[in-house]
Amino acid sequence: MRIVDFSDEDPAVVLLDQRALPHRTEHLRLTTVDALVDAIRALAVRGAPNLGIAGAFGVALAAHRHPDDPAAVPAEAERIARARPTAVPLALGARRALARLDDGPAAVLAEARAVAADAARVNAAATTRAADLLSALHPDGPLRVLTVCNTGELACGVGGTALGAALRLHERGMLSEVLACETRPLLQGARLTVWELARAGAPHRLCVDSAGPAAIATGRVDAVVVGADRIAANGDVANKIGTYMLACAAARSGVPFLVVAPEETIDAHTATGDDVVVEERGPEEVLEVGGVPTTSPGTPVFNPAFDVTPFELVTAVVTEDRAWSPRREPNAPSAVRETRHDAVRRHVSR
Amino acid sequence: MRIVDFSDEDPAVVLLDQRALPHRTEHLRLTTVDALVDAIRALAVRGAPNLGIAGAFGVALAAHRHPDDPAAVPAEAERIARARPTAVPLALGARRALARLDDGPAAVLAEARAVAADAARVNAAATTRAADLLSALHPDGPLRVLTVCNTGELACGVGGTALGAALRLHERGMLSEVLACETRPLLQGARLTVWELARAGAPHRLCVDSAGPAAIATGRVDAVVVGADRIAANGDVANKIGTYMLACAAARSGVPFLVVAPEETIDAHTATGDDVVVEERGPEEVLEVGGVPTTSPGTPVFNPAFDVTPFELVTAVVTEDRAWSPRREPNAPSAVRETRHDAVRRHVSR
Repeated sequence: MRIVDFSDEDPAVVLLDQRALPHRTEHLRLTTVDALVDAIRALAVRGAPNLGIAGAFGVALAAHRHPDDPAAVPAEAERIARARPTAVPLALGARRALARLDDGPAAVLAEARAVAADAARVNAAATTRAADLLSALHPDGPLRVLTVCNTGELACGVGGTALGAALRLHERGMLSEVLACETRPLLQGARLTVWELARAGAPHRLCVDSAGPAAIATGRVDAVVVGADRIAANGDVANKIGTYMLACAAARSGVPFLVVAPEETIDAHTATGDDVVVEERGPEEVLEVGGVPTTSPGTPVFNPAFDVTPFELVTAVVTEDRAWSPRREPNAPSAVRETRHDAVRRHVSR
Repeated sequence: MRIVDFSDEDPAVVLLDQRALPHRTEHLRLTTVDALVDAIRALAVRGAPNLGIAGAFGVALAAHRHPDDPAAVPAEAERIARARPTAVPLALGARRALARLDDGPAAVLAEARAVAADAARVNAAATTRAADLLSALHPDGPLRVLTVCNTGELACGVGGTALGAALRLHERGMLSEVLACETRPLLQGARLTVWELARAGAPHRLCVDSAGPAAIATGRVDAVVVGADRIAANGDVANKIGTYMLACAAARSGVPFLVVAPEETIDAHTATGDDVVVEERGPEEVLEVGGVPTTSPGTPVFNPAFDVTPFELVTAVVTEDRAWSPRREPNAPSAVRETRHDAVRRHVSR
């Protein structure tokens, strides 16, 4: 089953509607750019790499709908690229397909299919490298892997990234279990990661997010694998809220913490995690689950969409090109300092 | 409004029904021991100290219902004590009230009221000491406090424990904000802590649990305050799942991590956290929120009810008697060791 695809017959962009998962498996056949833009905005399709693929297919759709008026296509491509302004791959995918407009609709579609194929190739290389690294850690037996959010095919294209690495282990008979954090507020772990694992026949359990660090501390996890939204030049990792707490716990217990992501996620223009502006989202995501209120109406909310994990907690960033263990520069100032924790401990009695 | 009380008129044990909060404020008037046992089992009343008070009032109810047959009361007291077998204060409260049976129903009720008064006195001393300690940290301005679960009057009797310390700061004009973790799976933070804070007029925001560590790391928290289910002799703290991740993050950022609990929580018979058996609860708590499924039916679940925070992450345990900073014995073996994290970092490229 393709998550994002193109049907030549209609023509149409075909999407697995991620809003309905895991309760219903429904595909959308989108025959207009308007319908695709609405589907992107409503999160029927999500995940930066998959948005790039959807954007490219969207431009192919526009080219097919205006075979005799190619001049109408660039404006349509721009509307698609701006459907979610912060998703960089969406614009990249749309513009890459648009660059073939002069060669006709078939060429645009071929380029869109190349965007999807490239994502699959990148994912295959990165997940294979990550699985090799994890296998080397536990040559004697299968691994128990902990993850957060959804980094499988639903988000990242064929093969996935962090979840893909766990599924490569499963294919090798080297996966004992994936422990999936449910990923409040939007429950991508409970709704999407569990669905992908069940579909692959991979052993798994679901836990509330705060049970992830406890599972690590009690020896229930052999490795943590996560994706990344953006990786700073120094190796600091911005990813779904909840990533940082898993990294803290993994470091305390000496459990490897792997980030699996395409090389393009590493942003040379972002020096450190301090330069990442963390998006705060609306309160309604926290105030309810599936339409059921969890608290008093109107309660003020703190709802950061992601957090930043400092590079020293990252065992390795694994991409299609390399496994990279970011390290402090030899002459960088030390982060060690007198803390309020120390001050209080001196302040109180033994 | 009393959370747990006794009405002489009916007679009846009167409980604020915590299952209905925050959406409805409903009191139960329980005129039979059967009804009280049902209410305890169904979590209409919860929190170890409050269960002790409810148990003592339950024995007073039995004594009032059998004024001419006191021999019937001990069996009733035993049924109450066993309504939730792991809640030690429930049995202690019931048996303490029962010890006055020979002096008549009024004496039993007086003893039950003394159980409640003692809890209030203990809480007042512990929360005042904790608020003093926190105020000393920030003499120049109000504090931003992070907490998890519910440790206010709903759980602990008049004055509360960890949440009570934050409310003492509020009374002194020293509270800037309480950031309350929602506390999946049962949402005691979202449902109960937010309700208590709003009732007290104390400034607060709600966040998903995984946002707590990120809030600490980004300088949004001046102190973490939590309660405890049990504290081992070495200072390891067993508390609601999610406590450990907050302690990890607080230690990394040098933010004080205070445990506020009655002295009786420190268990001399539990040497370390390794001796605490962590209860795993049923999957349904994770698989749904308010009756709405969050994932595929039948998904396997890992659902530990609490976790253990090692003493070295605890800035101080604050009780009615003292502030205690548990420390490693001078000659104890070091916990430092070669870890898999280190091994992987050597294994991969720079």
